[in-house]
Amino acid sequence: MQPTALLILPEVKSLLEKGDIAELRETLAHLHAADVAAIIVEIEDDDAKTLFLASIEDERVEIFEHLDETEQERLLHLVGAKAMIPIVEEMASDDRADLIQSLPTRLADALLKELPRPEQKDVEALVKYPEKTAGAIMTSEWASVPADATAAEALVHLRKVAPHRETIYFIYVTNPDRTLIGVLSLKDLVLADPESSVRSIMVPDVISMPVEADQEFVASKIAHYDFLAMPIVDSANRIVGIVTHDDAIDVIEEETTEDAQRMGAVTPLEDSYLETSFWQIIRKRGLWLAALFIGTMFTGTALKHYENAIALLPALVIFIPLIISTGGNTGSQSATLVIRALAVGDVHLRDWAHIMWRETRTGMALGLFLGLFGIARALLWGTGFPIAIVVGLTLLGIVFWGALAGSILPLGLRRVGLDPAIASAPFVASLVDVSGILLYFTIARFVLP
Amino acid sequence: MQPTALLILPEVKSLLEKGDIAELRETLAHLHAADVAAIIVEIEDDDAKTLFLASIEDERVEIFEHLDETEQERLLHLVGAKAMIPIVEEMASDDRADLIQSLPTRLADALLKELPRPEQKDVEALVKYPEKTAGAIMTSEWASVPADATAAEALVHLRKVAPHRETIYFIYVTNPDRTLIGVLSLKDLVLADPESSVRSIMVPDVISMPVEADQEFVASKIAHYDFLAMPIVDSANRIVGIVTHDDAIDVIEEETTEDAQRMGAVTPLEDSYLETSFWQIIRKRGLWLAALFIGTMFTGTALKHYENAIALLPALVIFIPLIISTGGNTGSQSATLVIRALAVGDVHLRDWAHIMWRETRTGMALGLFLGLFGIARALLWGTGFPIAIVVGLTLLGIVFWGALAGSILPLGLRRVGLDPAIASAPFVASLVDVSGILLYFTIARFVLP
Repeated sequence: MQPTALLILPEVKSLLEKGDIAELRETLAHLHAADVAAIIVEIEDDDAKTLFLASIEDERVEIFEHLDETEQERLLHLVGAKAMIPIVEEMASDDRADLIQSLPTRLADALLKELPRPEQKDVEALVKYPEKTAGAIMTSEWASVPADATAAEALVHLRKVAPHRETIYFIYVTNPDRTLIGVLSLKDLVLADPESSVRSIMVPDVISMPVEADQEFVASKIAHYDFLAMPIVDSANRIVGIVTHDDAIDVIEEETTEDAQRMGAVTPLEDSYLETSFWQIIRKRGLWLAALFIGTMFTGTALKHYENAIALLPALVIFIPLIISTGGNTGSQSATLVIRALAVGDVHLRDWAHIMWRETRTGMALGLFLGLFGIARALLWGTGFPIAIVVGLTLLGIVFWGALAGSILPLGLRRVGLDPAIASAPFVASLVDVSGILLYFTIARFVLP
Repeated sequence: MQPTALLILPEVKSLLEKGDIAELRETLAHLHAADVAAIIVEIEDDDAKTLFLASIEDERVEIFEHLDETEQERLLHLVGAKAMIPIVEEMASDDRADLIQSLPTRLADALLKELPRPEQKDVEALVKYPEKTAGAIMTSEWASVPADATAAEALVHLRKVAPHRETIYFIYVTNPDRTLIGVLSLKDLVLADPESSVRSIMVPDVISMPVEADQEFVASKIAHYDFLAMPIVDSANRIVGIVTHDDAIDVIEEETTEDAQRMGAVTPLEDSYLETSFWQIIRKRGLWLAALFIGTMFTGTALKHYENAIALLPALVIFIPLIISTGGNTGSQSATLVIRALAVGDVHLRDWAHIMWRETRTGMALGLFLGLFGIARALLWGTGFPIAIVVGLTLLGIVFWGALAGSILPLGLRRVGLDPAIASAPFVASLVDVSGILLYFTIARFVLP
């Protein structure tokens, strides 16, 4: 919930309690649809229904569009699907398709049947695109004009269709068969001589994306070009939809959340944290924890192998957590830096040598620093010089290896076509844990008498 | 570098080699300014200069704006500051202020002196806002109309000012003293009866942000309202600038990168990964590693305390890495989920009880599961039933504690006004490490004879 909505919430609640619908309506009229939606999420079912019906008729579609699908379904049940038909009919086509796709089949079918034929066909066309593609997030309400129209004719046409278009700020120029041949902005059109032809003012090199492109790729392109909307085309270069700047922000936020969760060793949640069911969270965390648990079990196998050494020199044990944690932390840092740099396009696969060289030097420098730190600590603990040297050398080695492993792993994952973010901090740490123990006891065997 | 630019790069390079400027100019004419900028970043100094001067004059400002400040400074040196004055003059005011702020003082002053007086004053006004505030990212080129103009007059006015405005799709209505009293879209204006007054078609409840607002907050608001631009006002509600949708995307990406780096225990880098100097990376990683190293040293202190127990029962040691890693991993998961949910606004501080209750149950369930897993493993290793029980109980306890600590920490940090992302995976893991060892040996003392 956003602060503007938060500030007004007590007033709205008290009006709902008093049943003062006239005053409620007046209050809502001053709010942005996004804030009315944010209030609906916060209040009880009966109040939500009253509030929605007290809002200005013209605003209801936009309020409804600002709700997520769970809340939209709730309102459908509260207000009644029949009464909501005019609103669903007016929704942006991408939001409408998303809603119908998320509803239980029976309700979706009932709703679809009540829609006018063109909207029915539109929904049917949009829902057939696979999730997370350009097709799944695009809207079919773009504005287009023929190339041989004049600027004045184009403006007249736009005036007519504007109420039913998601944006008229970018206008696509198409042949009669709908192939995309140009683009112009409303700004260009307003500035142009009314008698000039659309062809003469349009930009002919239109940047577009195929309908099967990944949504993350489309969003990054919208950011790269600072576009208001990206046209989406089929294999014959016919325009089939547009993805708008606000959808790009949503996609970027969604994909970043997924990456963050992967990096924290959680299988990405499909809903928000509080909306995800208990058992789903358990599954999405439990599988990773179990896998990491099995991986880390090798530390036990390694330690079991060195049981005699431990019995002889229990002082060695004191440094085990310090060594594996430090290696793991360095690995987490490298993995985080490389994963994020890959995600925002600061580095690419072809930079691998550059990245490895940098991590090699960083690992050496940090390893030297922490190794000396470790020697000092060991001497202070009174473990004697030989053990201190073992600890120092191991820290040097494991920090170096952590930095290298933390950067190789995401690059390797990207190389084989997987998401680099799977190289989560815990995953890299587990990998480095086992190597750390092997390294520690190997060095100990050589250095200690 | 983006694929479109990447595809054309070999062709561009070969044209540069041949010195075929006419053909180069023709090739560049078909590219988007963002792609020409992406190519400039990839080529040598001499080529970059040739390429920039071969691009279409009208496009140069946009190409220049699509470069980051480091690359802009490089071009200034290559082409010569004097020759670049007309381009700097035409830049969007926010980009221009950012550039001048990032230049060495001497070059900045020289450049500023060459700019016409109005642009000089504009830069001076913009650079005085603190970094990361709305004022620092806003542009001063918005379109405004008086309330008593007619729609037709407003359109005539817009036609005149459009070339010098960053966007004319949202038009702000102001009193003569520049206080903001309404907003209307170009769409509304185009659709309106030409004789109607601006006052009658504007939306009077304008959402605006104060000039000192945090850039992340402004960006999240633009996303919340699906705005193309957010008006920025001073304390007297006078409009002083606008922040546009493309800047909002940049801010969201920048803030997400900072959060990701914090969560990976790296102090946020100021530049991209490869642009950051070696020593800066060492400092930004070394400080965290040293702090975590000192934190983890307490595991050594704890283990030293239990040296006798270890000498008596070396088998206990086998499970130490498994226990601390598992606790750390669970803690990382919780911290990641809560930090990200806070960042995108899925949860708020006031949800703390809800979050704690969920993590308590999740921690118990995951702890039971991993505890049983651990008991099975211990029995298979032949450590005997008592140690297996100690391992199982410790895992139950540490997973529970990890889940709880991982969620309390970010909430606590937010509560005291710090960034929750400081509760990095390594930080939470280190905290849980020490507790894990204490818990393990405490349980061992009670259960084992």
